[in-house]
Amino acid sequence: MAWDRRNLLSMSQLDPADIELVLETAGRLREIGTRPVKKVPTLRGKTVVLMFYEPSTRTRSSFEVAAKRLSCDTLSISASTSSIVKGETLLDTLRNLEAMGPDLVVLRHSMAGAGDMLARRLGVGVINAGDGMHEHPTQALLDLMTIAERKGGIDGLTVAIVGDIAHSRVARSDIIGLRTMGARVRVFGPPTLLPPEVESLGVEVAGSREEAVAGADVVMALRIQRERLGEQLLPSLREYFELFSIGPQQMALAKDDAILMHPGPVNWGVELDPALMHWERSVILYQVECGVAVRMALLYLMLAGEGA
Amino acid sequence: MAWDRRNLLSMSQLDPADIELVLETAGRLREIGTRPVKKVPTLRGKTVVLMFYEPSTRTRSSFEVAAKRLSCDTLSISASTSSIVKGETLLDTLRNLEAMGPDLVVLRHSMAGAGDMLARRLGVGVINAGDGMHEHPTQALLDLMTIAERKGGIDGLTVAIVGDIAHSRVARSDIIGLRTMGARVRVFGPPTLLPPEVESLGVEVAGSREEAVAGADVVMALRIQRERLGEQLLPSLREYFELFSIGPQQMALAKDDAILMHPGPVNWGVELDPALMHWERSVILYQVECGVAVRMALLYLMLAGEGA
Amino acid sequence: MAWDRRNLLSMSQLDPADIELVLETAGRLREIGTRPVKKVPTLRGKTVVLMFYEPSTRTRSSFEVAAKRLSCDTLSISASTSSIVKGETLLDTLRNLEAMGPDLVVLRHSMAGAGDMLARRLGVGVINAGDGMHEHPTQALLDLMTIAERKGGIDGLTVAIVGDIAHSRVARSDIIGLRTMGARVRVFGPPTLLPPEVESLGVEVAGSREEAVAGADVVMALRIQRERLGEQLLPSLREYFELFSIGPQQMALAKDDAILMHPGPVNWGVELDPALMHWERSVILYQVECGVAVRMALLYLMLAGEGA
Repeated sequence: MAWDRRNLLSMSQLDPADIELVLETAGRLREIGTRPVKKVPTLRGKTVVLMFYEPSTRTRSSFEVAAKRLSCDTLSISASTSSIVKGETLLDTLRNLEAMGPDLVVLRHSMAGAGDMLARRLGVGVINAGDGMHEHPTQALLDLMTIAERKGGIDGLTVAIVGDIAHSRVARSDIIGLRTMGARVRVFGPPTLLPPEVESLGVEVAGSREEAVAGADVVMALRIQRERLGEQLLPSLREYFELFSIGPQQMALAKDDAILMHPGPVNWGVELDPALMHWERSVILYQVECGVAVRMALLYLMLAGEGA
Repeated sequence: MAWDRRNLLSMSQLDPADIELVLETAGRLREIGTRPVKKVPTLRGKTVVLMFYEPSTRTRSSFEVAAKRLSCDTLSISASTSSIVKGETLLDTLRNLEAMGPDLVVLRHSMAGAGDMLARRLGVGVINAGDGMHEHPTQALLDLMTIAERKGGIDGLTVAIVGDIAHSRVARSDIIGLRTMGARVRVFGPPTLLPPEVESLGVEVAGSREEAVAGADVVMALRIQRERLGEQLLPSLREYFELFSIGPQQMALAKDDAILMHPGPVNWGVELDPALMHWERSVILYQVECGVAVRMALLYLMLAGEGA
Repeated sequence: MAWDRRNLLSMSQLDPADIELVLETAGRLREIGTRPVKKVPTLRGKTVVLMFYEPSTRTRSSFEVAAKRLSCDTLSISASTSSIVKGETLLDTLRNLEAMGPDLVVLRHSMAGAGDMLARRLGVGVINAGDGMHEHPTQALLDLMTIAERKGGIDGLTVAIVGDIAHSRVARSDIIGLRTMGARVRVFGPPTLLPPEVESLGVEVAGSREEAVAGADVVMALRIQRERLGEQLLPSLREYFELFSIGPQQMALAKDDAILMHPGPVNWGVELDPALMHWERSVILYQVECGVAVRMALLYLMLAGEGA
């Protein structure tokens, strides 16, 4: 079933051809960002609502830059300034915004399924920009673009994901996307931070950090949420660094041309050894660059219409 | 005395011809929002400052969408990010903004008369987007547009307004506008929430909820400010719902084609019975839609100049 | 050594020819703000990040208005909404933003040297919009423009700066700029608020308020940070007013055509006597006006390129 391009809520909506279309479009549109005038009039007169109920610099900024490069207007609403202070429900807030005639809503919310719930009830399309511990599909697409461009493809690669798998919407969306594109995925992390049903996602659970990264084409470390410490799901940050971080020794076990990824922001000295901060095979900032391109592609594919 | 189109501070500035001009202009401009490219260059190079000293999603967003549809730039300033943190006075802040050369200021402030005070002292025009318990004229204009479009006119209609009349800037502006356009207005609410001088506004005070809505063409419920509970001006929310809310039984007493309005955001189960949430004669979201059109009309009439 | 137009971190980067170029460009661009369509397409497709880690209405708004007049897109990030909530470092945040391809970063930060630190590590240019107690070069440039336009030049003038010299980034940048342009600078303030090495900046320390302003062409009062009171560096506000404020008596000692300046926001009744609030030779709002013009000039000179 092909993607209808109305909503993007989960990576499970996208089949390999959909993902290839997004990455191919992103590859084509990224060139706009290298021109002296980094702007095309393609989406002039379209309005995207950026509705962020959780703090975010990079995802919101990435969507905003992407929108502006296509001459698309943005309306930014953050929880602290919005009338949710008055107790309005999420659905009511969005129904009201919808009545103002925007073309798309980009939503980040702490509740898993917030995007799905809205997409079923609203007429306007929704992009899920992170819903609780559930999914973050635009992050997965930018990760896929990074891998595809740096490794020349995704099919058949081995990707190691290390860290807090259980609470990571990035891990969840990445795993679905990587599996769809034919990659093999190995995960590793503190036993308390592995979801019970993790094998049902089609991944292998490694027995050690070394086993996870051995021979991998891509090593991805996940961000530790410091608030998990208080929940006693994590050892101390020092212990985490000793047992679960990625450093030069771990990367030495991966393939000779393996790349290092992280969704950011990095806690250096926790998930990653500061020795890798300026490492030549770290693609962490390239992921950010791909983020703008992927979001331009999604806005284009979802808003420009067939004839565009 | 015709409206000078420099400021919009109170509905009492507008005579019937002024209101008709705004509604007619809004009706004409709303069409832009249905085009594939929802934007005209009419106000290119104009800048509107949106200065909100109280949280607001809908009013601020509505002005922002309206401005963008006319290619007008906006500068959004909210209390929390502004230098009022440094103790600067409102007038000083606005004088400074004025020196930057904006074309119009849209102001929401908790102080009644804030807009008037500024308009007398500034050279730049001011739209009052809500000043304490005083007025909210753009809300009244969108309510008038909603009524005019859904009932085919305003003159001679009976409008029932139910709720916290005393603290509602919406009620105050609506009453002035409705009376100007020849409607009959009946109000009802908890006795503690009726202003002492209410009859001087030219309205009838109904003795019961049923008397208020009987035979009405339009029933408008007002939002309860939960903070009034702490001031002991209100019974419990449960009691309020029993005695002052609008539900199917009340609407059955109004005319057969009566419409239901609310300025939003609705406290469902307090002011309105949730049974009316998706009711066919509720025009609550249509009010929001008219809000964008009315604000486009005001920006156009106040900024485009005679020759435009 | 001529200014490279990549960064603007300190007034000490600018020689007299650089400052004259900025002021001349500002004088030329200010005219755009008086047209019916206050916008030129010069910087279309450029993006400036406004990164404010301290609250600011006027400086942020001034840059935003300046950018819009040149059709430059802005991306506004304030500390409260950014992922610094997540503990990300300033450098990491900026490196991530840089990967999104902006053309310039305008930074305000409470840490002295924040701009320098970033400029050395980033590829994108940085304008320092205030770094702790260090510098605020765009304020100095707008002050120089104000003086140059109102006094017909800067060379040979006597400028008195009165107030908290030690903690003022405005004073520091103004002193450097005024000295570069050949003005004589006298400072005066509470002994606790004079930096020990102040004479090394090439200024004279006056023995009294009267001595400072006597025969001056320009009198500039600085803003008192009320938080200094808690640090016991300041007498009470009442005492400050008695001993260190500028009022009609002080201005009477200056030249007959002396102008009064203040970087704003003014604490009336503390630094300045309210009797001067609407004084004809106060140029405080004219400073704000020059601020937009100077920032337009900087954006133009730093982004439009040689051929523009």
